[in-house]
Amino acid sequence: MPTRPSETPVVIASNRGPVSYRSEGDDLVEVRGGGGLVAGLQPLLDTGRATWIAAALSEDDRSAVARGLPGPSGPVHLLDVGTGDLERYYDVVSNEVLWFLHHGLFDGAHSPTYDDDWRESWQAYRRVNRAFAHAVCEHSPERAVVLVQDYHLTLLAPWVTTQRPDLRLVHFHHTPFAGPSEVRSLEPTALQEILSGLAAHHACGFHTPRWEGNFLRCVDDRSLPAPRTFSSTLSSDLGAIREVAASAACAAALARLDEQVGDRFVIARVDRMELSKNVVRGFESYDRLLRIRPDLRGRVVFVAHCYPSRLGVPAYRAYRDLVVETVDQVNERWGDAGWTPILLELDDDFTSSVATYRRYDALLVNPVRDGLNLVAKEGPAVNERHGQVVLSTEAGVCGELAGAADEVNPFDLVATSDALAAVIDRSTEERRARSEQLRRDAEARTPEDWLADQLRAAE
Amino acid sequence: MPTRPSETPVVIASNRGPVSYRSEGDDLVEVRGGGGLVAGLQPLLDTGRATWIAAALSEDDRSAVARGLPGPSGPVHLLDVGTGDLERYYDVVSNEVLWFLHHGLFDGAHSPTYDDDWRESWQAYRRVNRAFAHAVCEHSPERAVVLVQDYHLTLLAPWVTTQRPDLRLVHFHHTPFAGPSEVRSLEPTALQEILSGLAAHHACGFHTPRWEGNFLRCVDDRSLPAPRTFSSTLSSDLGAIREVAASAACAAALARLDEQVGDRFVIARVDRMELSKNVVRGFESYDRLLRIRPDLRGRVVFVAHCYPSRLGVPAYRAYRDLVVETVDQVNERWGDAGWTPILLELDDDFTSSVATYRRYDALLVNPVRDGLNLVAKEGPAVNERHGQVVLSTEAGVCGELAGAADEVNPFDLVATSDALAAVIDRSTEERRARSEQLRRDAEARTPEDWLADQLRAAE
Repeated sequence: MPTRPSETPVVIASNRGPVSYRSEGDDLVEVRGGGGLVAGLQPLLDTGRATWIAAALSEDDRSAVARGLPGPSGPVHLLDVGTGDLERYYDVVSNEVLWFLHHGLFDGAHSPTYDDDWRESWQAYRRVNRAFAHAVCEHSPERAVVLVQDYHLTLLAPWVTTQRPDLRLVHFHHTPFAGPSEVRSLEPTALQEILSGLAAHHACGFHTPRWEGNFLRCVDDRSLPAPRTFSSTLSSDLGAIREVAASAACAAALARLDEQVGDRFVIARVDRMELSKNVVRGFESYDRLLRIRPDLRGRVVFVAHCYPSRLGVPAYRAYRDLVVETVDQVNERWGDAGWTPILLELDDDFTSSVATYRRYDALLVNPVRDGLNLVAKEGPAVNERHGQVVLSTEAGVCGELAGAADEVNPFDLVATSDALAAVIDRSTEERRARSEQLRRDAEARTPEDWLADQLRAAE
Repeated sequence: MPTRPSETPVVIASNRGPVSYRSEGDDLVEVRGGGGLVAGLQPLLDTGRATWIAAALSEDDRSAVARGLPGPSGPVHLLDVGTGDLERYYDVVSNEVLWFLHHGLFDGAHSPTYDDDWRESWQAYRRVNRAFAHAVCEHSPERAVVLVQDYHLTLLAPWVTTQRPDLRLVHFHHTPFAGPSEVRSLEPTALQEILSGLAAHHACGFHTPRWEGNFLRCVDDRSLPAPRTFSSTLSSDLGAIREVAASAACAAALARLDEQVGDRFVIARVDRMELSKNVVRGFESYDRLLRIRPDLRGRVVFVAHCYPSRLGVPAYRAYRDLVVETVDQVNERWGDAGWTPILLELDDDFTSSVATYRRYDALLVNPVRDGLNLVAKEGPAVNERHGQVVLSTEAGVCGELAGAADEVNPFDLVATSDALAAVIDRSTEERRARSEQLRRDAEARTPEDWLADQLRAAE
């Protein structure tokens, strides 16, 4: 008799795992990870149904692996793939090429460029994927469902299915998927291996039909057999965010924020300082708003949490500098002794971000392209001010918040500042109605729904 | 009785026309234009079957229009749309946005950006297109076929067909057409008007099925009614180029070139200094060739004709500087008193380019994306050295030269330099066979074939 789906063992393979390690003196302390992915999969771990394979990402993680942690009988296995391969697989192939490719960040004339060093990096990516494949084969119970996560791990399926035809592999891609014209800027061997690697899964999932359609067109262009595909959106663990919102630390952070902003209209953003997040155009749109609407000067304030990200990559350092420069210009142009138009927060402090979620009147989420974007769901879930959401049409979450959010083309400064003006001028009644709809839409799906969609796709 | 197709009057609308003007003292001298478009359409002009409407592009052109030139009863009409509108329609909308869009030259994080100034430029583009539409309505004989050329003139059809339902409009797009993911970086109003403007033609033509497919997917994504589409490649007027090749001036240029290069293996390129032409990666690939193949140092020379282009656009000036800097680095790294590895020619001198066509042993045509690329046909047609062609897979001409050219991914320095090495190492016999095939493929189609395809599409 076949195993019932609800009892099928599950193996998860992802770059970042549910635990990591931090050294304290001679000890290594286990740190639990957060985010929607862990929230969605944690119940499987807690009930002993799941095994999780992830990369040892830090020096402390590697020390843990060397000491036999997290322990061979536990549900989590960290792979130490070596620092050289890790850097090439993660920084070069995954973050500098595949991330740029899927987010449309190459300019053609100058990037990408594939040289001999790229070829070494690609071989490292293959080796790391193969190490994951070996670990999956080794740790997977009979007839398990293997949930492979994201663009770091695209090559497992052909190797695993040869060794372990009893397993059923589902891939979930958390970023956008580039269109058929765009993927042609990937080095051809890598492109062919990635597409056929993905196509070798039993099913491939994406956040939205748009990314799913792009993938299918790419597969079709190369006459590869298409796997089953599905789209399913992730959510944050909103319960955990509500707990933070209700904490004393968050109340203190909110009190500090209130002291800074007073009763001004608060426009907010919460992002990594990431090329795809479109931070600069956000400030340029705000600059235009202050120019065309003198009545708003002194009455609004832009609270921007922009956490440092990938500062080892020159393009990211340059982008951070451009962001800071733009903020300085706007503050100098319009600010005065009693009013700083933009409050830029560069420290990664989740409690303080949640305080801003509670306080904003308008949340600006304007990525040039985004697989989904969880900020646009987290804000409405804990906001206390009938806050509105100005949202890029290029964020995957756009479909879920359609009708309630104010949609803008992220390249369009005029549309973005006009949308901010419209939100400011909106009646309290309409704001309330929209914010309630935003909250309902944001809460409509849970991380468990997303997990269930993956398991269903494996059937 | 319906007019026979061969007798149907034809009206051509294009940005650049078959004649322009140059002042000499108080006189304005008429200059005949060149290129495949004019070559294809000239017979229609000569037999009095065609009317041609184009923009007055220079100060001298505008002076000519003011003096009533080329004359109201002649077949050519130049439109003076005013310098302000001309600059916005041509430089801003056509060259800085649509060209970049269709060639994949935006980087997302920094470009494109649409501000208030863009909106003024877009209105100028609409006004110029409307001026063309009026001129088409005014100058078109009853039941004429109107051949509308290229991305500058996408909005005529809805206006013209309302006023003159007797006319049949065919659009031909000479650049690549961006994919559905890529066009989303165009400002939404402009995108909608362009796609519905193109879709309002009786038929839309492209150089290759790839651009045709991209257009159809974009139209389909917006549920617009798809027009008839076709693909048809253009050719240069090879007869005219052979005449130049046979001229005394070309013989003199070739003698000068021979003096510089001696009996070395000549790699050549002939391009505008254009972001899409991928000049820098070409030199970087050559740099790698000299690094991995010490035996080739002193034995090869790269003759590069890179004509200045759009130097009013900052990105083009920066690109020219990068090209020159790269050439200097390569020459300094590998050159010596008796050998300069790269001979960079910045003057636009067609006779000297044709001399290089005659002399090259390998022609490098490596655009990051190109609607067609006529250089890859012109070279083989007059080459005298069994020259090979190293050709980007992203050039529209690639399909026509498949099998005979050496195809490379243009972003891949390793593949490009390996292809150059393979060509150098190739036996004379195989070089001869390939060069003969290249010549046959290059000569397979004429400008007249391309014209005939457009007229057939109008039926």
